[in-house]
Amino acid sequence: VTVFEQEHFQGKCLEFTSECCNIQECGMDTIRSIRVESGAWVGFEHHDFQGQQFIMERGEYPHWDAYSGNISYHVERLMSFRPIYCASHQSSRMIIFERENFMGRNAELCDDYPSLQAMGWMMPEVGSMHVQCGAFVCYQFPGYRGQQYIMECERHSGDYQHWRNWGSHCQTPQIQSIRRIQH
Amino acid sequence: VTVFEQEHFQGKCLEFTSECCNIQECGMDTIRSIRVESGAWVGFEHHDFQGQQFIMERGEYPHWDAYSGNISYHVERLMSFRPIYCASHQSSRMIIFERENFMGRNAELCDDYPSLQAMGWMMPEVGSMHVQCGAFVCYQFPGYRGQQYIMECERHSGDYQHWRNWGSHCQTPQIQSIRRIQH
Repeated sequence: VTVFEQEHFQGKCLEFTSECCNIQECGMDTIRSIRVESGAWVGFEHHDFQGQQFIMERGEYPHWDAYSGNISYHVERLMSFRPIYCASHQSSRMIIFERENFMGRNAELCDDYPSLQAMGWMMPEVGSMHVQCGAFVCYQFPGYRGQQYIMECERHSGDYQHWRNWGSHCQTPQIQSIRRIQH
Repeated sequence: VTVFEQEHFQGKCLEFTSECCNIQECGMDTIRSIRVESGAWVGFEHHDFQGQQFIMERGEYPHWDAYSGNISYHVERLMSFRPIYCASHQSSRMIIFERENFMGRNAELCDDYPSLQAMGWMMPEVGSMHVQCGAFVCYQFPGYRGQQYIMECERHSGDYQHWRNWGSHCQTPQIQSIRRIQH
């Protein structure tokens, strides 16, 4: 991944092949555009992988603000990032549970779901999740919009017991679309 | 689809089973939350299906602003909407072309592509498109983010010769992710 201090891939730039826990310690004030050359990455609002999460897949992000933009939440920065450990698309698998601590009704997911309700999940929330294989992005709203949470088999043994574990700024169990992450 | 004048499904509400070309002519000033009960819909910034487009799939949208939010483009309203004519997920099919008027290199798509570049499309733009079956959402950025354009087989015979046909406010041929729409 190559990150740039200005929009449209201008200004100071740095290339990374592994995680960066604080872009300012690498001598860059801020990130305004990004080019992902390979792999899938997760970017974080704060250093040390804290705060809001953003999935970054192969392609060009000429205006970080436009990409991350969310009127309900104005502080938008990209301060740290790391690669995501994905499985092959076909073998990605997770279970979502109605209640926290893996209780209540559940459903196994092994595809992309732009609307969980359309596939039969009756509520706009998820209580807890277990990623069996691969990595997924979960979104607050249908159609892959709103707050994002990256869920990986390789982290926390794939266990996400409570919405407070989904991300350091997560404030709601609302999840309405989920998709697999692939390289 | 049920639309509400206030956030969190409060205030005056109206239920629709078919298109609405001007919500103000239905006696509602603005839409702040939405519940999609069935089908897939496209919402528009202006009346008569003009301006920025937003896909709306089954589920709850308690804050329209947070859903549609895009810092690069501040005027966000929902003034008209209509159902989308989808095919079954398996039979959805479209072709993207490098240049306008269906010229240059092309690729056939029949799946969801969070990153066109990851699947081998070498540039961040698309010149023209032909939808053979079903309906798709095309996005400016990878990961289903940024400006959205709904492309339907049932409209314009599925032909989108030039980026100026993609939507009434489209200002760039940049398209980096595409996915199928299903009911």
